[in-house]
Amino acid sequence: MSGRVGIVGIGHTPFGRRSDATVQELAAEAFRAALADSGLDRGHMDAVVVGSVPEYHKQRSLPGVVQEYLGLTPKPTWLTEAACASGSAAIRTAWMSIKAGVHDVVAVIGCQKMTELETAEILALMGRVGEVQWESSFGSTFPGYYAMFARRHMHEYGTTREQLTAVAIKNHFYGARNPLAMFRKEITAEKANASEDVATPFHVFDCCANADGAACVILAAEPRARGLRKPPVWLSGMGCASDTMSVLRRPSLTGLGSAQAAAAQAYAMAGVDAKRVRVADVHDCFTIAEVLAYEDLGFCAKGEGGAFIAENRSYIGGSTPVNVDGGLKAKGHPIGATGVSMTTEIVKQLRGDAGERQVPDADVGLTHNVGGIGQYCFVQVLTRDE
Amino acid sequence: MSGRVGIVGIGHTPFGRRSDATVQELAAEAFRAALADSGLDRGHMDAVVVGSVPEYHKQRSLPGVVQEYLGLTPKPTWLTEAACASGSAAIRTAWMSIKAGVHDVVAVIGCQKMTELETAEILALMGRVGEVQWESSFGSTFPGYYAMFARRHMHEYGTTREQLTAVAIKNHFYGARNPLAMFRKEITAEKANASEDVATPFHVFDCCANADGAACVILAAEPRARGLRKPPVWLSGMGCASDTMSVLRRPSLTGLGSAQAAAAQAYAMAGVDAKRVRVADVHDCFTIAEVLAYEDLGFCAKGEGGAFIAENRSYIGGSTPVNVDGGLKAKGHPIGATGVSMTTEIVKQLRGDAGERQVPDADVGLTHNVGGIGQYCFVQVLTRDE
Repeated sequence: MSGRVGIVGIGHTPFGRRSDATVQELAAEAFRAALADSGLDRGHMDAVVVGSVPEYHKQRSLPGVVQEYLGLTPKPTWLTEAACASGSAAIRTAWMSIKAGVHDVVAVIGCQKMTELETAEILALMGRVGEVQWESSFGSTFPGYYAMFARRHMHEYGTTREQLTAVAIKNHFYGARNPLAMFRKEITAEKANASEDVATPFHVFDCCANADGAACVILAAEPRARGLRKPPVWLSGMGCASDTMSVLRRPSLTGLGSAQAAAAQAYAMAGVDAKRVRVADVHDCFTIAEVLAYEDLGFCAKGEGGAFIAENRSYIGGSTPVNVDGGLKAKGHPIGATGVSMTTEIVKQLRGDAGERQVPDADVGLTHNVGGIGQYCFVQVLTRDE
Repeated sequence: MSGRVGIVGIGHTPFGRRSDATVQELAAEAFRAALADSGLDRGHMDAVVVGSVPEYHKQRSLPGVVQEYLGLTPKPTWLTEAACASGSAAIRTAWMSIKAGVHDVVAVIGCQKMTELETAEILALMGRVGEVQWESSFGSTFPGYYAMFARRHMHEYGTTREQLTAVAIKNHFYGARNPLAMFRKEITAEKANASEDVATPFHVFDCCANADGAACVILAAEPRARGLRKPPVWLSGMGCASDTMSVLRRPSLTGLGSAQAAAAQAYAMAGVDAKRVRVADVHDCFTIAEVLAYEDLGFCAKGEGGAFIAENRSYIGGSTPVNVDGGLKAKGHPIGATGVSMTTEIVKQLRGDAGERQVPDADVGLTHNVGGIGQYCFVQVLTRDE
């Protein structure tokens, strides 16, 4: 492999309902912010990779419309889709294009408008991300799958309803401190438990929300990445793995095989272990998903995820602060944008630019992004120079 | 850049209406054929890349369902989408992953079922691949855009209706000789001209057909690519470029800027020029598209595409045989599969395995795949060892 790939610019729109902007306008908002952050010009971009799930938009061919809007034709562009992990898949292909020596500087834009369609249309589309022939055609949905994981985790390991709520409380605590988050309000256990049932054991506050938004990272090859406005943050470990489409074919419901495999790849490539991770952004589409992530990533032992949050170990000051940007739960989940958003947060942390949410001594960070119901997982280990 | 990337296995389902198979079954059919062709085992695959436009299927998350069906979890997988060029985009990201040293052997599967949805649903989806805000919302469609290109080409260069028909006649001539083609019948000018009007000047026989199908290529890094069942065919030049989403913003309607830019990149990387290309597969979604391709790729001068086909120069025996597999026109166009299908045809030609459609002395080949209305174009130059 050739030299390292660094992140030299980040940009991020507020997440939430953005009826003021088209998807290409959101993309441009994040891209312009990332350009300014890097000090590079538009003309320095060798290619643009878009991470998005096209079918939520009236406009298809997003790379085309984004490329025109940014004035970057005829430069190369492509789109990657891996359900909710589409943004991380986009970063991965951009990273490979630079390591391959094909491109030197690449902008990755995760962008998604979830509010163009009616809720019923969104539900119909989301159902199709589950296995259609034997599962979703019989009524399985995302909340249903994850609720099943939660019930099984409770049964096998004694995880409690209160521990799940504690995840939501933590993420709202940090979301309240993130100016880009959709929900900027702290919540109490009472409020969470009084919220409407979704799928036992989940209430509304166990679930993340559909949102509009975009995030951008600009990647550059090692020599090019130095001497720009900010010191580069390196993509030091890149994992990518899959699991069966059919949840019924999995040996366990209390962990995601794709996450475990992707984490092992990323740790090995970066030459670090879970203990070395100072800050992480993980895919908390539902509260149980963050508990599974603690375990799948090795932040705690199997079955101890409930205790991990109950003991505040994923807060700043704990052993591994997780989702101190609010996570999907409070920041919102514009699906294609989420993976890129995660990376921008870890870059901020490793730069020491996270303000009141700053994790002390954050020199090694991690992102963990899950697509579908664990059909895909992408794990990144990010580092900075000493 | 590191070493070369070779194609070591190819597989291809028949194209046409395949109500006998799900999309994952089509993918598996092509994959198994490519495995057998290469002599490799399933376990040798380091990753699988899927090229497809997901929204035409009831099942989303195609890489997940394909990966499960092939028994390749937890290996990495991702999907690329670039409208009708999705398959070529998939090959490009796989090529980069190998050049980057991330993977050694990667299977690329282009797969698409176009017949799961009703025609009206497909038309609604296809409209959204045009620019929605100012164009397709006012009724522009694929046949309409390309018909406009044809009319302008006729106006500027004197291209004739008969020359367009000649493209269809050639592609049906070769389709009749390709056992994998959807339409295996020669046609006459009389039959073509008597077919129903679609969008002036197009009749039905100026238009390719929606189809079901899959194709697979297995790529390997140079040391690994040698000593397998068949000699490798090298991906020697890889171009990728974009054009504006809005056709109204383009300076010319008689050529695709993305194709010209992608061709220039691919020729430069391979160190060849258009004259060196012995056989090409180009994106003939409509007859005029093949005429534009002759010119954009430099097989003839600007404006001479009509004469190029009229003089039989794109037949075997002519200066640059084009679409001797039948092209999209007669082979059928399962959109995500098309780019991979093109590559399999050129591999066959460079191996000397194309039977009665064999182009003599085919040592340099080219594929040209267009997404949308030229929003993307991918050009590959393929070579073999002497």
